[in-house]
Amino acid sequence: MDGMSPGDGGGRIGLAHGNGGRLTRELVEAVFAAGLGGLLVDHRADAVAVPWDGEEGALVLTTDAFTVQPLEFPGGDIGALAVHGTVNDLAVAGATPRYLTLDVLIEEGLELDRLRRIVASLARAAREAGVRVAAGDTKVVRRGEGGGLYLAATGVGVRPQRVALGLERIRAGDRVLVSGPVGDHGVAVMLAREEFGLRGDLASDCASVLPLTLAVRDREGLRFLRDPTRGGLATVCHEIAAATGLTVRLDEAAIPLRDPVRGVCEMLGYDPLYLACEGRVVAVAAPGAAGEVLAAWRALPQGRAAAVIGTVTKRGGAPVVLETALGGERALEELEDDPLPRIC
Amino acid sequence: MDGMSPGDGGGRIGLAHGNGGRLTRELVEAVFAAGLGGLLVDHRADAVAVPWDGEEGALVLTTDAFTVQPLEFPGGDIGALAVHGTVNDLAVAGATPRYLTLDVLIEEGLELDRLRRIVASLARAAREAGVRVAAGDTKVVRRGEGGGLYLAATGVGVRPQRVALGLERIRAGDRVLVSGPVGDHGVAVMLAREEFGLRGDLASDCASVLPLTLAVRDREGLRFLRDPTRGGLATVCHEIAAATGLTVRLDEAAIPLRDPVRGVCEMLGYDPLYLACEGRVVAVAAPGAAGEVLAAWRALPQGRAAAVIGTVTKRGGAPVVLETALGGERALEELEDDPLPRIC
Repeated sequence: MDGMSPGDGGGRIGLAHGNGGRLTRELVEAVFAAGLGGLLVDHRADAVAVPWDGEEGALVLTTDAFTVQPLEFPGGDIGALAVHGTVNDLAVAGATPRYLTLDVLIEEGLELDRLRRIVASLARAAREAGVRVAAGDTKVVRRGEGGGLYLAATGVGVRPQRVALGLERIRAGDRVLVSGPVGDHGVAVMLAREEFGLRGDLASDCASVLPLTLAVRDREGLRFLRDPTRGGLATVCHEIAAATGLTVRLDEAAIPLRDPVRGVCEMLGYDPLYLACEGRVVAVAAPGAAGEVLAAWRALPQGRAAAVIGTVTKRGGAPVVLETALGGERALEELEDDPLPRIC
Repeated sequence: MDGMSPGDGGGRIGLAHGNGGRLTRELVEAVFAAGLGGLLVDHRADAVAVPWDGEEGALVLTTDAFTVQPLEFPGGDIGALAVHGTVNDLAVAGATPRYLTLDVLIEEGLELDRLRRIVASLARAAREAGVRVAAGDTKVVRRGEGGGLYLAATGVGVRPQRVALGLERIRAGDRVLVSGPVGDHGVAVMLAREEFGLRGDLASDCASVLPLTLAVRDREGLRFLRDPTRGGLATVCHEIAAATGLTVRLDEAAIPLRDPVRGVCEMLGYDPLYLACEGRVVAVAAPGAAGEVLAAWRALPQGRAAAVIGTVTKRGGAPVVLETALGGERALEELEDDPLPRIC
């Protein structure tokens, strides 16, 4: 690898690493194949046949691009985020993640050591979630054109036939739950940018939610699962309201929120209900099933702070209403301006 | 859509189009859902279950990122290229393409009209190849950070159990074929950059190779198929030589090459054997099967110029040898410096 970087004194990515020839092959072998180890199905093939025999259920596909800045932040980095984000989209669809594909867009000049750390973190996340990397591609773009590193990940999973989740199953009277405190990822990334001159002990909640979804996906009365990422909890509630024509009423006092997140948000004027989480799940469950979902989550380390935070009602007033801790209520608007760009 | 672009007078992408809120939803609905029509399985879901019942065969996955400059060029654009490139990787693996996922990284300031043209072209290519878009994601990055537009596409296909192709099946004595003239895509993109002050009537060969692969994938004696993209024909031959320990001997006089491609390459000092094609297939076939593959290809409009261009032999001398039109021979080296960066 020391000879990998022509014209740059070694240790950094050059444009020629993206030309498809020897340097690309060496980059893939030394950084990706080495870093991913047995997780990579076959790094030499453009298209890979994956074992799928005897699998019962529907094939589920998801994809996301990741442009987070900075690339590394307390509690995670773009590599872990790409895996968890993709695994989590499959998990909340009721699926078991099986394979990922990975596209890596590298800006000329990126330090190889940083790339290696990110690949190692990505590999840990993939191992934890039980997914393998079936295919990948690497492109290098000119200095100044690529934000250091962008990732695009596609997830392939299988959903058992018995699992039945969807926005269309939600009914008035259903309860809304969240698996843990909201807004941690958004605040952690914001603080990591340093421009605010603040440092907290806050870390991103970036993690696989698969244990949380596997614990509840088969329960009767569970209607819908979603991970509140870009746009946060409020945006998931708007999705529910828009798809069902019902109103989501949230109880502010019941929404789990860490004190430092609350403090930073109050100081800087952010609403934590719009900030991204990367390791939480929102569930909608029939009234009789909400207690079971809550108990199942609280029994897991990831779900100890889970709570019932609201109810779905007939449409009355705004699509999403927050009953405030002071006894009043206010409409939560659909997200307009971006409070925190590039958080995923 | 006219109200889509705050702060920019309309008609261009703004950072807020990537925030996950109303503007992102409007962008997805007005440009992607509208442009892709029925090709898009469900633009509202993060993860989509796709019908897969009764399908016989192996699941095949591939992925590629696309950073071509310029975004539009004679014979294609980044949208058509992303679909064809992905479909073609599945096709040469012997699979029938079924679904794509699509990640779109847009630079702030991109003209909406240009984005619409590219999505329309992408939709045409997808329709032609019979694939649907199962999932997608859109991110917006700051002006100067995204080269206008990057795409990442993942393809999901199914390969019938009877199809048996792979580098490990290649034997000494096998013949090498190509389905048409080489280097057109590389030269067309280069000329479209204008910096050379040249204009030709050359167009990219960017197209689906699926008709070519479906016509031959079941034939006994067919060993291996590959599309010669980044790094061109010479790079595919190096892949074969490296994987088998054999030598690939090419007959220069037999390699189909358009006169204008030859002319531009001679003038500018490029070797067309290293330039990308985006609509050609290289095949390796047993001696007794090569004639059948050639006849099957020549019967198709895409394969009229198909030719047997070489032989795989026991390793003698260099891994890849070109027998020149003048009766001599020279080694074709593995690609080092990039003759044409950003051609896909």
